[in-house]
Amino acid sequence: MADERDPAAAAQLFKALADPVRVQLLALVRRAPSGEACFCDLAAEFDMPQSSLSHHLKILVNAGVLTRERRGTWSWYQVEHAALDTMEQMLRPGGPLRDEPVEHQHQG
Amino acid sequence: MADERDPAAAAQLFKALADPVRVQLLALVRRAPSGEACFCDLAAEFDMPQSSLSHHLKILVNAGVLTRERRGTWSWYQVEHAALDTMEQMLRPGGPLRDEPVEHQHQG
Repeated sequence: MADERDPAAAAQLFKALADPVRVQLLALVRRAPSGEACFCDLAAEFDMPQSSLSHHLKILVNAGVLTRERRGTWSWYQVEHAALDTMEQMLRPGGPLRDEPVEHQHQG
Repeated sequence: MADERDPAAAAQLFKALADPVRVQLLALVRRAPSGEACFCDLAAEFDMPQSSLSHHLKILVNAGVLTRERRGTWSWYQVEHAALDTMEQMLRPGGPLRDEPVEHQHQG
């Protein structure tokens, strides 16, 4: 699992969500009715060139936050929970990037 | 709280940890014996100009991940848990960026 012992891997995961467009893409895909969103539908939500949107989607896919499946003309995207779980676990109190819960820190 | 409704604020938080140096800085500060680390001690861990290290620390402080206190010649840094809590809560299953736990997704 990526953590502080592999700072580059941890940073790459967080970088996936370090852009407002990518945060919005994740939100759109997770809310898609069937649990998957077509590139065509995502493109309709953003006023930007399709090449820029593809670039952001590629970063999310490479980080493991989304999966991509090509069907006919379009790609379809689903949320992949493993990467999000890894990030959440790193940030959890007592996790690899955190101390024990705050209430214990000023004891002893 | 920063979340998908404010993608820029969410992205800025994740950007704080989107660099290996900043992941390492967080890990060093949280492990400092007294709960705080001096700039002088942090600088000794990195083979980079002090101005670059200051830049990374400033990003962490601006995002609320570290707090900075100046005493005499040096700045001292402590982990500030609020920003890390916010990120963790966004990533938690059922949180603003996540669906309910995976086992519920294919029902109904």
